[in-house]
Amino acid sequence: MSYTLILLRHGESEWNAKNLFTGWVDVALSDKGRTEAVRGGEQLREAGVLPDVVHTSLQRRAINTAALALDAADRHWIPVRRSWRLNERHYGALQGKDKKATLAEFGEEQFMLWRRSYDVPPPPLADDDEWSQVGDPRYAGLGEEMPRSECLKDVVARFLPYWESSIVPDLRAGHTVLVAAHGNSLRALVKHLDSISDDDIAGLNIPTGMPLVYRLDESLAPTVPGGEYLDPEAAAAAAAAVANQGR
Amino acid sequence: MSYTLILLRHGESEWNAKNLFTGWVDVALSDKGRTEAVRGGEQLREAGVLPDVVHTSLQRRAINTAALALDAADRHWIPVRRSWRLNERHYGALQGKDKKATLAEFGEEQFMLWRRSYDVPPPPLADDDEWSQVGDPRYAGLGEEMPRSECLKDVVARFLPYWESSIVPDLRAGHTVLVAAHGNSLRALVKHLDSISDDDIAGLNIPTGMPLVYRLDESLAPTVPGGEYLDPEAAAAAAAAVANQGR
Repeated sequence: MSYTLILLRHGESEWNAKNLFTGWVDVALSDKGRTEAVRGGEQLREAGVLPDVVHTSLQRRAINTAALALDAADRHWIPVRRSWRLNERHYGALQGKDKKATLAEFGEEQFMLWRRSYDVPPPPLADDDEWSQVGDPRYAGLGEEMPRSECLKDVVARFLPYWESSIVPDLRAGHTVLVAAHGNSLRALVKHLDSISDDDIAGLNIPTGMPLVYRLDESLAPTVPGGEYLDPEAAAAAAAAVANQGR
Repeated sequence: MSYTLILLRHGESEWNAKNLFTGWVDVALSDKGRTEAVRGGEQLREAGVLPDVVHTSLQRRAINTAALALDAADRHWIPVRRSWRLNERHYGALQGKDKKATLAEFGEEQFMLWRRSYDVPPPPLADDDEWSQVGDPRYAGLGEEMPRSECLKDVVARFLPYWESSIVPDLRAGHTVLVAAHGNSLRALVKHLDSISDDDIAGLNIPTGMPLVYRLDESLAPTVPGGEYLDPEAAAAAAAAVANQGR
């Protein structure tokens, strides 16, 4: 028995395009992002890798990426599951700030610590900040779990319970599972799948809108470490571009 | 305790625009249909009638209408449930045929019998017809329940089990429920809600893209028979236009 898991990072958002830290701010896809999402779905259709169920975050850019990609793959009708545990990393007080300006203000070392360290979250976002999600009805049930800032370690900690309780059962049932999510929630997933160390995960970048397919063995270990992009050359070029953001 | 149920018929499809019988053929929304869906969602937002859960058919035009409307209402993140039991009426051998040409070929009496009689289905669609859905993976689990043609009575019969098993529990849980579906599956629902007779349901037309809000009492009876459109004047004009299709 082998299992098929497809990871899809949302297409470019309006704030990716403006080079702002986004986190839990619920921005829309850009026109380019919508095109990327459709192209991702076309890749799935062309490769015959067809999801039976989709999991998304509670954020518009991932939800709409999933909808556009599944429509293009003729799989718009599959069951949908959503969870805040698939959300992007909460970027704390950096949410809404320009990446280049933040780099200039705080310097390379602090900037990279916030962006890529495993366990140093940015300063927390004030509940009355214009970019706070406190009071958003979709997070009303979170209580104490509502983040005000997260490092990648925090994302791993809140993602893994959902992996175990919701995604793994779909895989074990034999479904081809699509996870449409975000740069950091997907890094958390890849870190877990490929047993990447806390240090090495810093170097991993996932491009937008490009389906990454994992075939998993009975123990849910990848048969090909790192999985396989349906369009490997485009994915490598895009990942390099992500790594250079803010430069 | 009162319950809130919102009915939304999909916006104009590419085949509505061409005046073809559609049924289970999975056509896309037209540009006008996408605009209608967004406007429907804006009406929900403006009225503050905000769904907590959405039920859709397995058909693209209802699925995309729901997605566009919910995005416009800022409720894109709510749970989604889908069922073939919310699909449009299967139009049998009429699927893919021009409504005006069908009227000319078969005459007014037969045409209206197929369109509006309660219990006379069109001739069945052959399984090898280009517009058949036999073999479509989304219906693989239906077995003997897979229709080849349906009258409204058939739609009521396959819709009601879903109403009882899936929609009513969401209402009883206190959720504001959006049902994004089709002219005839929504007529089946309205017939049930308003206890409309088999004869009188023929005269009921539901316009596309206009949220119809029912407030239900403890016994799930409408507090206002027929419900209330958020934009009643536009709905009345649109319903009259639907009644004249094929003329």
